[in-house]
Amino acid sequence: MFSERIDRLTSSLVRDILSATQRPGMISFAGGLPAPDELPVPDWSGIPASAAQYGQSEGEPALREAIAEHARSMGIVCDASQVLVVSGSQQGIDLVSKLFIDPGTPIITEAPTYLAALQSFELFGAVCHGVSLGKDGIDADALRTAASATDARLTYVIPTFQNPSGTCYSAETRTAVAAAADDLGLTIFEDDPYRELVYDEVDRTPICAHINRASWIYQSSFSKSFMPGIRVGYLIASPGLMPHLVRLKQATDLHTNRFGQWLAHGHLTSPMLPERLAHLRSAYSAKRDAMEAALREHFGDLAEWTTPPGGLFFWLRLRVPIDTRALLPAMLERGVAFMPGEVFFPATAPSLGYMRLNFSHAGEEQMRSGVAMLAEAVRDTPAL
Amino acid sequence: MFSERIDRLTSSLVRDILSATQRPGMISFAGGLPAPDELPVPDWSGIPASAAQYGQSEGEPALREAIAEHARSMGIVCDASQVLVVSGSQQGIDLVSKLFIDPGTPIITEAPTYLAALQSFELFGAVCHGVSLGKDGIDADALRTAASATDARLTYVIPTFQNPSGTCYSAETRTAVAAAADDLGLTIFEDDPYRELVYDEVDRTPICAHINRASWIYQSSFSKSFMPGIRVGYLIASPGLMPHLVRLKQATDLHTNRFGQWLAHGHLTSPMLPERLAHLRSAYSAKRDAMEAALREHFGDLAEWTTPPGGLFFWLRLRVPIDTRALLPAMLERGVAFMPGEVFFPATAPSLGYMRLNFSHAGEEQMRSGVAMLAEAVRDTPAL
Repeated sequence: MFSERIDRLTSSLVRDILSATQRPGMISFAGGLPAPDELPVPDWSGIPASAAQYGQSEGEPALREAIAEHARSMGIVCDASQVLVVSGSQQGIDLVSKLFIDPGTPIITEAPTYLAALQSFELFGAVCHGVSLGKDGIDADALRTAASATDARLTYVIPTFQNPSGTCYSAETRTAVAAAADDLGLTIFEDDPYRELVYDEVDRTPICAHINRASWIYQSSFSKSFMPGIRVGYLIASPGLMPHLVRLKQATDLHTNRFGQWLAHGHLTSPMLPERLAHLRSAYSAKRDAMEAALREHFGDLAEWTTPPGGLFFWLRLRVPIDTRALLPAMLERGVAFMPGEVFFPATAPSLGYMRLNFSHAGEEQMRSGVAMLAEAVRDTPAL
Repeated sequence: MFSERIDRLTSSLVRDILSATQRPGMISFAGGLPAPDELPVPDWSGIPASAAQYGQSEGEPALREAIAEHARSMGIVCDASQVLVVSGSQQGIDLVSKLFIDPGTPIITEAPTYLAALQSFELFGAVCHGVSLGKDGIDADALRTAASATDARLTYVIPTFQNPSGTCYSAETRTAVAAAADDLGLTIFEDDPYRELVYDEVDRTPICAHINRASWIYQSSFSKSFMPGIRVGYLIASPGLMPHLVRLKQATDLHTNRFGQWLAHGHLTSPMLPERLAHLRSAYSAKRDAMEAALREHFGDLAEWTTPPGGLFFWLRLRVPIDTRALLPAMLERGVAFMPGEVFFPATAPSLGYMRLNFSHAGEEQMRSGVAMLAEAVRDTPAL
């Protein structure tokens, strides 16, 4: 009765856990939610009456211009005609899946990678081949080998404060990955929602800024540094991809909501933006440091991790590789939500014994007690 | 390089024409746009700060309750757990396509039908079999015959003020179509965005309210009676379909924007709603009557039509069946936009010599001169 893709349809564990985290008193390390205190209050003054009417599929012209200018400041060669405003980053992933993926299409992802991207790619039938993440990103030679071995034409990467691992690619890796894409004609799909949440000095030049010949799609979002509730993100693509992406957007939801686009434009062009981002970085880096301290106290003998230089997550590698999915029901029962790391690995590269802990949402007191409870559960779980 | 579906990706002529209609002074009969004067001014007072945060994939609980109550008042047996808020009706079509359609899947539509639905169904690979619309809707026996002959499991219908034809199914046809669905186990996908725009007394009971055993999806939107710019619509589905639809929504865009949902909830639960709808009906029925008068004057000898008892469109059948697509470029040049009727027919049931004219958007003066110019162009076009 249903389409074949329904056999491949999985639930997003993140979204399922999010329902559980609505319970009062729950300590949530699960999602990538902004801290409630950091959410701006929307200012609707001056919004034109026309925002209530249908809009253009490509997005609001003023917002597209502002996004293109912002992207050029990062080194991406583009103009506004290459910008497609989307209903959040997840829609960007849906549109790119529609553009490239048939049942059986091989693609390359990092291992681990963003689980809702895997969910979308696999729904459309992709076979996701993982290339292992090291501390400087994926190895460009391993990418070349994997692309040749699998005949993959599309590579999905999150080079800056990667989800789930917090990894930030080194400058050398960024240029090496771009060179591999140029040499092999590999399309790069770069997802960059966390770049403004930077706490330590690192190179954040988009890989797409280093590409000379290959096709590319750069994606970002207003969900992490502004407001997720507006559901506004954007793609910027090499010119040959745009006509297809615009038509796919038409067929998918006509256009992105205009009230959200108007708020996003106000955010991006506000003279207060640098100050607002500085405040956000300061607040979140303090939370990162608080979680680091709690982890040192409770997980020092249980796990290894790298302090994330930005983003929203700690990524723990347990010294004893238990399946952390087995811990989740009891922890939710006890009022602590976290993300088991296993779900972030493509099916071709399974891996056990990882946990992703978000540090932006919980308060410091909650953080300490939640980390202690998690550590206790890990300590009490026998190895496989 | 691209997926196979890109070979089936067509542009929406409606969306393409919409860009042309942004030109100052253009008289547009093309889209289904609300009149600018009828767009409400959003009232943001009382919106909770949490609207800026991520929300639930299913939609805001209060909005889902209000929608379920509204649907029950129309005779649909449902509760809030069966409601999925979507980012506009077009997304509902995308999700239903994902749920049911593989390359080659046969489905049944009305002929003519909503062209962006055809666009989505065909993008996913459906073979759309058209059943001819008569003045009371499709013939239920013809539906039974088509379903048996094609082995189609899904039927897409717009029974109330159909787009493009303005047809409103009779009460007898509604029950007969529901009975056919029950007998054959045919899933009904009922699209109902125009129901509140009613000018004459007709039966508007949803077909889904008459279904006893078959699966069904009822869809509506806030775009026609409230604001399209918020991009909020909804599906209500028989219980067995909901878990799949919710997961598909997760993978597609996580959730619908919360500011728009909040406005939609305010609209649906406002004590002013009956008064507001009465005003809208009165304004649009006056426009309908003005266009009817202009058509009688200029198209009386050129075309036949039925006065639409609701909705947004006149559907002209030209006495000489020219391909009206050929008229479009010159008419756009002269400042008049309309929709050629040919694009509303599925590829399996092509038909020439129809035009769809929207009456909600243009002012009365524009309407008269635009209709006169169109008639002149039709009169000057030689038969094929």
